[in-house]
Amino acid sequence: MQDLWKHYPTIARKLEAVNALINQRLSTPHPGVHDLLAACAQEQGKLLRPGLFLLFSQLGDKQHQDEQQLTKIAASLELLHRASLIHDDIIDDSPLRHGTITIQAEYGKDIAVYAGDLLFTVFFQILIETMNGTSYMEYNATAMKKLLLGELNQMHARFDQRQTIAAYLENINGKTAALFKLACSEGAYFGHTDQAVTACAARIGTNIGISFQIFDDILDYASSTKILQKPVLEDISQGVYTSPLLFAATAHPGEFASYLDKRQNISAQEIKQVAQLVRQYGGIEQAKQLAHTYTEKALADIDQLPSNETTQKIRKIALTLLKRNF
Amino acid sequence: MQDLWKHYPTIARKLEAVNALINQRLSTPHPGVHDLLAACAQEQGKLLRPGLFLLFSQLGDKQHQDEQQLTKIAASLELLHRASLIHDDIIDDSPLRHGTITIQAEYGKDIAVYAGDLLFTVFFQILIETMNGTSYMEYNATAMKKLLLGELNQMHARFDQRQTIAAYLENINGKTAALFKLACSEGAYFGHTDQAVTACAARIGTNIGISFQIFDDILDYASSTKILQKPVLEDISQGVYTSPLLFAATAHPGEFASYLDKRQNISAQEIKQVAQLVRQYGGIEQAKQLAHTYTEKALADIDQLPSNETTQKIRKIALTLLKRNF
Repeated sequence: MQDLWKHYPTIARKLEAVNALINQRLSTPHPGVHDLLAACAQEQGKLLRPGLFLLFSQLGDKQHQDEQQLTKIAASLELLHRASLIHDDIIDDSPLRHGTITIQAEYGKDIAVYAGDLLFTVFFQILIETMNGTSYMEYNATAMKKLLLGELNQMHARFDQRQTIAAYLENINGKTAALFKLACSEGAYFGHTDQAVTACAARIGTNIGISFQIFDDILDYASSTKILQKPVLEDISQGVYTSPLLFAATAHPGEFASYLDKRQNISAQEIKQVAQLVRQYGGIEQAKQLAHTYTEKALADIDQLPSNETTQKIRKIALTLLKRNF
Repeated sequence: MQDLWKHYPTIARKLEAVNALINQRLSTPHPGVHDLLAACAQEQGKLLRPGLFLLFSQLGDKQHQDEQQLTKIAASLELLHRASLIHDDIIDDSPLRHGTITIQAEYGKDIAVYAGDLLFTVFFQILIETMNGTSYMEYNATAMKKLLLGELNQMHARFDQRQTIAAYLENINGKTAALFKLACSEGAYFGHTDQAVTACAARIGTNIGISFQIFDDILDYASSTKILQKPVLEDISQGVYTSPLLFAATAHPGEFASYLDKRQNISAQEIKQVAQLVRQYGGIEQAKQLAHTYTEKALADIDQLPSNETTQKIRKIALTLLKRNF
C-alpha cells in the first residue's frame, strides 16, 4: 500500500483508518476463528479500490461529507475485493498472492470458503449501515453479480483457444472493471460531487479497470516471479488464456494448438515455448495497444473533471497504475 | 417438498411460484454457466424456510399483503439456505444431499464456490428489491453472519470430545435456528401481523430450528441411508460431534476416547462401535429429551398466537417436523 499511496499522505492516513475498521469488523471472541480472520484481514494489497474511492470523494465538498461514512464505504469495497480474492485462490489453487501464502494454502480450502463468505457478509452489513434505502445498495449488488459472472464465465472459457477478444473484454469488465467503476462512482457520489462528475467517475473507473486488468495479464508473460510476487505463467497451465496469447494464437492457430491442445497436461518447458511464441508474434505489443486505448479513454474523461488539485492526483495515480513493471 | 406441504394446498401453490422465481433469477445467457445454475436451482429440498415464512404471513391481514413481495422474500430465504448448503457440501465433501449428487461432487469444488456466491448475491438483490431501507435488511445480514459463524465454530470444534452441550447449542442456534427465526418473524412482519405476534413468531422459529437440528443430528445415529438419503454416521468421521455422542461421551469419556482419539483415521467398523456405545449409554434418548424441551417451548408460544386456522396449521407443521423418521 505504502508504495502506491506514499505521495498522497491524506489518502494514506485515511486508508489506515479503513484497515483498522476492517480488522475491527472481522474480530470474534472465538480464538481459532479469530486467528483465521485476522490472517484474512492482514492480507495487505495495494488498497487500490478504497484509495480510488477516497480520491474521487475529494472532488466533492468537504463541508457536506461524513468522514465515518466514507471510511466505511471504502472498507466495503476492500472487503468485497478480498472476499472474491479468497474464493479465487480456492479455484486457482494459488499458493502465493502478493508474495504471501494464501488463506487456502495455509488454512485449507474449507476455512477459505467460509472466510470469504464472512467477508461478503460484513461487506453487506456495512452497506446497510451506510446506504440502506439508496440506489447504491442495488449498484453494489449489481457489481458483485458482475464480478461473479465474470469469474464464472472465465472459468467456463478455460482452455478455449478460440475465445474472442470481445469475450475476454466482457469477462474482465465483470471480474475487474465493475468494482473499479463502483469505487470511483461511489467516491464521487458520497463525496457529494454533482451528477455529471459521478457519471464521469463511473466511466473513468471502468476504463482504468479494464486497462489495469489487461496490464495485469501482460505481466504474466513479461515479468519474473520476483517482481510479480506470484508464480509466473500460471494462467496458461490453468487454461486462462488472456489477451497476449489470444492475439498471437488467433493469427497463428496451428502453432499454438500443438501446445494448447494438451490443456492442463502442458509441461513447464512447453509453457515457456508458448510464452516465447506469444512474444515472437507480437501478442504482448498488441495487448499493450489494447490497454492503451482504455487508458486514453480514462484520461480523456479525467480531463473533463473539474480542474483542481484532486483531478491532478487522479491523473497521476491513473498513469502510475497503468505504467507497470515490465 | 410435496410430501411436507401436500396437506397445505395454498402454501404448496405459493411454493411453486417461489421455485419458479428462483429458477428465473438464476438464469443467464451463457450455456455452461446456465447448466450449472439450473442444477443448483433444481435442488429440491423441503422448502421448509419459505414454507414457514408463507405460513406465518397468513396470520396477517390478507388485505394489506403484497403477494409478489411475499413470494420474493420466501425465495430469498431459500436462496440463503441453498447458498450455505452448496458451500457446506464443499467442506463436508458430501457426495449426496437429499438423495441427489451435490453440486461440488458433480461440477467440482471450483464451480460450487462461485455458484454459492452467486446465490448469496441474488439473495442480496431480492432483499434490496423488497425491503431496502427497513430494519429487516439488517436482520437478514445478522442471520447470515450467525449462520456462517455457527459453521465456522462447528468446524473449529471438530474432533473436540470435550465440547459442551452449551457450545453445541450455540453452534446450531447459529447454523440452523437463526434462519428459522428469520423465516417465521419475516413472515409475521411482512404478512402485517402486529408486533407481539412478530416477536412470538421469532421465538417459535428459534425453538423449532433448534429442535429440528437436534433431531437431524439424532438421525445420523438412528437411521439408515435409505430413509435419510445421505450417508449415515458421516458426522463422526468428519469430527462433528453432536448431542447424542456428546451426552454419552461426557458420561463415559474413557471408552469414547479410545475410538475418537483416532480422529479422521477412525475405521468404518469403529464408527459403528461408537454409534453402538452412543445408543447403549442413552445418548439418543438424552438428545431426544433435549429436543423435546425446545419443541415444548415452541408449542407454548404457538398457543399464544391468535386462535385461528393458520395457527392450527402452524401447530401441525411443527409437530410433523419434530416427529421424524426413527
